Amino acid sequence: MFTQEEKDALYKVIYKRRDIRTFLPDLIPEESLHNILKAAHHAPSVGFMQPWNFIMVTSDELKERLAWAADKERRALAIHYEDAQGKEEHFLKLKIQGIKESPLTICVTCDPTRGGSHVLGRNSIPETDQLSTACAIQNMWLAACVEGLAMGWVSFYKKQDVRDILEIPPHIDPVALMTVGYTDHYPDKPILETSKWEERKNLDHLLFENKWGYK
Amino acid sequence: MFTQEEKDALYKVIYKRRDIRTFLPDLIPEESLHNILKAAHHAPSVGFMQPWNFIMVTSDELKERLAWAADKERRALAIHYEDAQGKEEHFLKLKIQGIKESPLTICVTCDPTRGGSHVLGRNSIPETDQLSTACAIQNMWLAACVEGLAMGWVSFYKKQDVRDILEIPPHIDPVALMTVGYTDHYPDKPILETSKWEERKNLDHLLFENKWGYK
Repeated sequence: MFTQEEKDALYKVIYKRRDIRTFLPDLIPEESLHNILKAAHHAPSVGFMQPWNFIMVTSDELKERLAWAADKERRALAIHYEDAQGKEEHFLKLKIQGIKESPLTICVTCDPTRGGSHVLGRNSIPETDQLSTACAIQNMWLAACVEGLAMGWVSFYKKQDVRDILEIPPHIDPVALMTVGYTDHYPDKPILETSKWEERKNLDHLLFENKWGYK
Repeated sequence: MFTQEEKDALYKVIYKRRDIRTFLPDLIPEESLHNILKAAHHAPSVGFMQPWNFIMVTSDELKERLAWAADKERRALAIHYEDAQGKEEHFLKLKIQGIKESPLTICVTCDPTRGGSHVLGRNSIPETDQLSTACAIQNMWLAACVEGLAMGWVSFYKKQDVRDILEIPPHIDPVALMTVGYTDHYPDKPILETSKWEERKNLDHLLFENKWGYK
């Protein structure tokens, strides 16, 4: 069903995709944007509930307010690193989001009420709707990468701030703010690996046979 | 950075990937298995915490017990459909998992303690570790698809049952049971769409401009 070239293409994009925090102001072509949203919408979802919405934030005023919400959260978190041997300073030097620079921020939301009270599978594990939304984000991210677009997942904010800024109803979960645009620097390795914040683990150490802890 | 053929390949696999519940007994080649696990491990993760582990369940006895856990949950859930106009009967006819038939079930877990107390970004939104794990699952699923393998996400179980069966420590979240193998029927459309359980939504209806509800 898939050729060797098609297999290679998938692995290339999976390995090349990076979380990007610096953007150029260039606008995103309509076709590319359509492709990445369609890719997101073709993610799996529990009970086929498709719990996601996508709020396309291009207003400078709203991006400014989202950046403010992210920045105050960043400053608040830095305080928690104060006893961690230089990690506070290291942390404050990391650029953690590019909401103001990127031409578009997509707020990806999850509606836990979609599909009614008895969504197939969701009753067993309620967070499967959020997990489905994460699958949509991953599809979107891979699609952005092949479209030559950079994407960054901003996860520093109080959800209530984002709800207030984007007028999101209280029962809707603003799962992620995804910044999108072109960049002049698409690194080979994760920023947190290059900056020596964390290392990539050895995959073999993460695998078990039949039971936890068994090799 | 990506050719048109590579773009087409990504979209092909994103659109073709399906949740499969019927499997052949044929074993999975080592190389394919390695490829799908490596794809999973290259997912994004909050603060680069890589919270996942993969328990490769091939023991017939353990698969039998996992299938029992899923089946009793299915029967328990069916009771909740009893007032829903024929939905109980419809539900009980759906095949919801293929744990016993598939040669391999991968239990994908999430360790919320990995990376210590101050994982970058996780302090703001604690469930980002689970969301990262879902991104790994989506990568794995796309990889399985290009490898010609079928995959199904089993989300019917009590987490404590799965912990007991696979000896998973109490603080580890068994996020998903992913059944893997070959199949003789890889459908074009989602099973829940074909069986008229749910329809695919119109993407345009899921998009908003700048604020929730605005077009």
